Amino acid sequence: MKVLAILYKGGDAAKAEPRLLGTVENELGLRQYLESLGHEYVVSDSKEGPDSDFQKHIVDAEILITTPFHPGYLTADLFERADNLKLCVTAGVGSDHIDLNAAVKKSVQVLEVSGSNVVSVAEHVVMSILLLVRNFVPAHEMIERGDWEVSQIARNAFDLEGKVVGTIGAGRIGYRVLQRLVPFDCKELLYYDYAPLPEAAAKTVKARRVEDLKELVSQCDIITVNCPLHDGTRGLINEELLRHFKKGAYLVNTARGAICDKDAVAAALKSGHLNGYAGDVWNVQPAPKDHVWRTTKNPLGGGNGMVPHYSGTTLDAQKRYADGVKGILDNYLSGKSQEPQNVIVGIGKYETKAYGQR
Amino acid sequence: MKVLAILYKGGDAAKAEPRLLGTVENELGLRQYLESLGHEYVVSDSKEGPDSDFQKHIVDAEILITTPFHPGYLTADLFERADNLKLCVTAGVGSDHIDLNAAVKKSVQVLEVSGSNVVSVAEHVVMSILLLVRNFVPAHEMIERGDWEVSQIARNAFDLEGKVVGTIGAGRIGYRVLQRLVPFDCKELLYYDYAPLPEAAAKTVKARRVEDLKELVSQCDIITVNCPLHDGTRGLINEELLRHFKKGAYLVNTARGAICDKDAVAAALKSGHLNGYAGDVWNVQPAPKDHVWRTTKNPLGGGNGMVPHYSGTTLDAQKRYADGVKGILDNYLSGKSQEPQNVIVGIGKYETKAYGQR
Repeated sequence: MKVLAILYKGGDAAKAEPRLLGTVENELGLRQYLESLGHEYVVSDSKEGPDSDFQKHIVDAEILITTPFHPGYLTADLFERADNLKLCVTAGVGSDHIDLNAAVKKSVQVLEVSGSNVVSVAEHVVMSILLLVRNFVPAHEMIERGDWEVSQIARNAFDLEGKVVGTIGAGRIGYRVLQRLVPFDCKELLYYDYAPLPEAAAKTVKARRVEDLKELVSQCDIITVNCPLHDGTRGLINEELLRHFKKGAYLVNTARGAICDKDAVAAALKSGHLNGYAGDVWNVQPAPKDHVWRTTKNPLGGGNGMVPHYSGTTLDAQKRYADGVKGILDNYLSGKSQEPQNVIVGIGKYETKAYGQR
Repeated sequence: MKVLAILYKGGDAAKAEPRLLGTVENELGLRQYLESLGHEYVVSDSKEGPDSDFQKHIVDAEILITTPFHPGYLTADLFERADNLKLCVTAGVGSDHIDLNAAVKKSVQVLEVSGSNVVSVAEHVVMSILLLVRNFVPAHEMIERGDWEVSQIARNAFDLEGKVVGTIGAGRIGYRVLQRLVPFDCKELLYYDYAPLPEAAAKTVKARRVEDLKELVSQCDIITVNCPLHDGTRGLINEELLRHFKKGAYLVNTARGAICDKDAVAAALKSGHLNGYAGDVWNVQPAPKDHVWRTTKNPLGGGNGMVPHYSGTTLDAQKRYADGVKGILDNYLSGKSQEPQNVIVGIGKYETKAYGQR
């Protein structure tokens, strides 16, 4: 049996740091395990175009392992050629790079390691909110270049206390963001989701549900996106919705790049309608060198907190998702049933409502 | 009566942003109030040397207003020439730039606006912890220069969850840091202070007191300094104490620059013994252009989260400390008693234990 893994290249870093498990070099720590069972394990970062290892090996692989950080995009077309494929495993959370409708049609299961990095991402969201609101990036750049002008920083620095924060999506990540915001004494915590939080959970974080998205964003000083990418969320934050944002609001997106309209967000940041944009997700990754989100700033020269896609791939998270992938393979190979929370697509049907199925 | 205020210059920023109250231009919003009562109000940022406005006007001022951000250093020598001085007011928190022993001797009162920016600073501490642990700065720099190498960032990115965090000082700021850390599920929260927290307060944040400083630092992945500067804390974090830190620990200092030995911290960061150093306080401010903390990094090219001293001077904080200064002046001018928590030095005696008096 062939197992194909598309991972990101670690280079020297991966050689020096064995805990970088999610790299081509360290192979999620699965080679010995898979080979001792007699399976073939192909690992590569080559994923684009017909000559890529991804397209070459997908034709006879039974299991495909991918990550959201360096996604192997498994399109409906590629599914047509993946005659042997039975199982897709996402090392991490978020399987939108797999055409899930095609997976249902072809009876290929899709699993994630659902709990593996939700805390990592939630921490990144809270960090990003703080560094935008408190105007960190231009302050640090000022120090590095040898300057000292407190007023240029303080003029656009605020406290998180007393502000209204809203999350689009209050699932495993969004809820953990709300939990971490509770002691910051925000004016109000709001959420938008297809389902209300269980009463006890909502009470714990003192969050109020807003059923209309425009109403939500119009009340928030800070908006954070914590929903999966699917047909219902692609381009959700576009020019039209941005008009309903408060002037000077901040937007944090660690969910998926394609949930935000690239040019609309950049224009809003440039004009100051958004005071800041931060996150680690980009529509196609690696992001092109000239992607406008890399360098766009607000009119005061700050407000950009973008990073490459790594919030969910801290060394702590890599250990958890490498362990989780092994658990999923164990279950599959021994015919045991999978943890229900890990199953996105079962054999021939969706097992979650998170990807827009109602 | 002459009131002298030493504030920082705001320039264009202060003209464009009237909420920059702590600047020379916006004068803490006190000019009309003081002049309507017939007082003279002198405001300047000129504070160094015998020709400075500070030294020129200190000889006949009755009230001196200063900030920690652009401190007018009132030494024992200067006290000798300040024959008219009755009251020093710190717009903010931290009055170590005033020689407090001299103030006691000369029967000059020293007051702070004690609650005005403790939340602002506590938020900055949590932000700094997150951005060091999660390796934000090199990640953002990578994006800005057009690169994309997830492994170079991920190799030194961790979660805050599961780590041990200790605060040196669990007073108004340190306690608020602990409060904000509770939902991050750290392995343990520790504190070092001359007095134990009240039982209920300690229970709320689930923090354990460690009475020996070396023992504290040897257990921590992250150490944050939240104590005032006085003779007992000057140079507290020096080469000897740093030897007791865990290899790869992070240090966050938003208290006062002089609590840390500049060269010892820089050397520890450069060698990787410290994985990161962040904060906004410097021994003498503005920091010299060539201050080693501006550019020192860990061996992987990250771990520097330094900014100019502004964590306590967000626009939200400026409103609170400007209001607070006015309240203190009101009490003084009308002979009303001051809020006890604002009094550092009363007439001829310390009123707080925070500056090392036992």
